[in-house]
Amino acid sequence: MGGDNYPDVLVAGSLEAVLTEKDIAVSLVGNSDSVTPVLNEMIAAKKAESCRERISVVHAEEVIGMHESPARAIRSRKNASIVVANKLCRTGDVDAVISAGNTGAAMASSLLYMGRLAGVQRPAILTLFPSKKNIVVIADVGANTDCKPENLYQFGVMASIFTKRLLGYENPRVALLNIGEEKGKGNDLTNETYDILEQSELDFIGNIEGRDIFEGVADVVVCDGFVGNVLLKFGESAFGFVVHNIRKKVAGNLIWKLAALMLKPALTEIKRDMTPEDYGGAPLLGVDGVSIICHGNSSALAIKNAVLVARKLVQEGMNEQIKQELAKTNSDNNE
Amino acid sequence: MGGDNYPDVLVAGSLEAVLTEKDIAVSLVGNSDSVTPVLNEMIAAKKAESCRERISVVHAEEVIGMHESPARAIRSRKNASIVVANKLCRTGDVDAVISAGNTGAAMASSLLYMGRLAGVQRPAILTLFPSKKNIVVIADVGANTDCKPENLYQFGVMASIFTKRLLGYENPRVALLNIGEEKGKGNDLTNETYDILEQSELDFIGNIEGRDIFEGVADVVVCDGFVGNVLLKFGESAFGFVVHNIRKKVAGNLIWKLAALMLKPALTEIKRDMTPEDYGGAPLLGVDGVSIICHGNSSALAIKNAVLVARKLVQEGMNEQIKQELAKTNSDNNE
Repeated sequence: MGGDNYPDVLVAGSLEAVLTEKDIAVSLVGNSDSVTPVLNEMIAAKKAESCRERISVVHAEEVIGMHESPARAIRSRKNASIVVANKLCRTGDVDAVISAGNTGAAMASSLLYMGRLAGVQRPAILTLFPSKKNIVVIADVGANTDCKPENLYQFGVMASIFTKRLLGYENPRVALLNIGEEKGKGNDLTNETYDILEQSELDFIGNIEGRDIFEGVADVVVCDGFVGNVLLKFGESAFGFVVHNIRKKVAGNLIWKLAALMLKPALTEIKRDMTPEDYGGAPLLGVDGVSIICHGNSSALAIKNAVLVARKLVQEGMNEQIKQELAKTNSDNNE
Repeated sequence: MGGDNYPDVLVAGSLEAVLTEKDIAVSLVGNSDSVTPVLNEMIAAKKAESCRERISVVHAEEVIGMHESPARAIRSRKNASIVVANKLCRTGDVDAVISAGNTGAAMASSLLYMGRLAGVQRPAILTLFPSKKNIVVIADVGANTDCKPENLYQFGVMASIFTKRLLGYENPRVALLNIGEEKGKGNDLTNETYDILEQSELDFIGNIEGRDIFEGVADVVVCDGFVGNVLLKFGESAFGFVVHNIRKKVAGNLIWKLAALMLKPALTEIKRDMTPEDYGGAPLLGVDGVSIICHGNSSALAIKNAVLVARKLVQEGMNEQIKQELAKTNSDNNE
C-alpha cells in the first residue's frame, strides 16, 4: 500500500503475471475496499475470469509511508500491508513477497518475519546493472552499512547463486570492488575479503575498480552496502545528467537541436535499457523466503517482471542452494 | 618523466602557462637530453625567446613507471623526476609541483618531501566534478582508504578553503556523502562525522546521496577515500557507457544514425565538459606546498591549466588559511 501507484499499477502488473504463467497465484495485500473494485474492473477489461481463482485480495488496514522510520513502523503497525504480506510468507501461505513501498520497511519486515536463512550472517540487497557486455549483479547495495570480510564473502556466494539461477550464467565471475587492481590495494575490509574470496570456490577474478563495472568484466561485484548504495544511486543519476548536458549543448545550434529531436526516441529507449524493468526490483537475499523490493514508482511491467523473477527463484530452489553452499563453508570453518 | 606524453606535452603546456602569466617560472624536471631540445624547438616555434629565463630544465636521471609500487620506488630512486621535483619544493626552490606520472608516487613523494601542513592529520586528494549547476569538489578521492571522523572534517575544511580560493565560491555548501538524507543514516563513520560537521563553522548542509552529486546541491562533498575513488572512476566511465549505448542503439536505424552523426561534435564537446581540463588535475591538499596530480595522458591544455591553478593557490595563500583554520579547531579541542 505504501507505493506511489497503489493500487492500480500493482493490480495490473500482478494480473499480467498471472495471465503469463499459469502456475502463479498472487495475493494482493491491501485495503480490500480500494483493491477489490480495481481488480474486478481489470479482470473484466482483460476478460480474465478464468484467472480469478489465482488472484485474490488479502485485507490489510494500515500503511507505512515512504518516509517513515521503518524499524518502529513495522513493530507498531502489525496490520500494515508490508507486515501482513511478510507474515503470509512466514506461515507458508506464500513463497515470495513483492513490495513497492518503503524500502527499509520491506527489508525490515522480511528480516523479521521471513527470518534469516540458515547459515546467513547478513542478508544483502542486490541490484542488476547493465554493462557493455552483460548484466552485472552488485551486492550489497544498502542492507549493511558496516561489513566484515566474511559478510562480503557470503554476499558473493548468494549473488553468484542468484546469477546462475536467474540469468543462467554458468560460472559467474565474481569481483571485489576496490580502488586498485592489484592484491593488497584498498582498505582493511577489502584486503581481508580478498584473501577469503581467493581461497573460496567462487570464480574469483580479483579486484575491479569503479570504471570496470560498465565494461562488464565481472558478473558479480561484491562490496559493502555503503559503497554499493552510493554507487547505485550515483549510477541511476548518470544518464539523466548526460541528457541534461545534451539538451543544454544543443540549445544554441539549430542542426544539433534537430538531430537531438530525431534521436529522442533512441534516447528514450536507452534510458529504459539503462534502468531495466526486466527484473522488476532489487532482491533481498539471505532471508528464508523470496523478497523483491521495487521502486515506489514502479510500472505495471516492473511489477509483473518482479513476480516472474520471484517465481523463477522459488522454482529454481535458490534458497536451498544458498543454504547448502554456506553449510559447506561453515563446516570447513568448524573443522 | 613517468607520464604518457613526456616530454612534448608537458613542455608545451608549461610554455603556454609561462606565456600566459608573466609572474610564473617553470622548472621542467626530466632528462635534459630529451627535454632541452624539445624546449628549444618550442621556444623557437613560438618566438618565445623573451620567456627563456622563466622556463628551465632541471636534470633528473630516473623515472618511476606508471605501474610500479610507489612507496618502494620513491625511496630507492632518489633521482626519479617526481622525487627531484618534490625536493625542489622542500628546499624552497619551487612553490608547487605538477606531475602526470604515477599517481601514488606523486602523492607519496609530496607527502615525504613537502611534508604535512601543520595541523593536518591526513592529506586528501580532491577532484572537481561537473554538475547541473556548479563545480562540485569531492574530498577525499583516494589518498586515505580507512578514515576517522576527524579526518573527514578536515577534508571538509581543506576542500572548502580550496573552493573559496580557486573557484571564488563565497560560502561553499559542504555535504556529507551518505546513503540516506536524514541524520542518523549511514555507517559508524558518517554518523560520527555528521555530528562534527554540524558543530563546525563550515556551511554544512547535511547528508547527500549518490544521486544528488550531479544535481549540484552541494559545493563540497566529503567522503572517505575509498568511496570517493570508486565514485570518481565510476563517474569517469559513465559518459563513455552512454555513448556506447547510443552507438549500439542507432546502428539499426538510418535516421538515428544520421542524427547521431549530426550530433557527434556536440557529444565531443560534452565529453570535454564532463572531464574538464580547466583545472588540470587533482590537487593533493594538506601538504606543505602545492601538489597537483594530473592524468598520465593529460593534454598540453590540462598541464597549462594545472600550472595556472597552482599559481592561484600559491598567490591566494591557501595553505596559510588551512593552517589557521585547523589551528582554531585544534586549540578548541585542547581547551
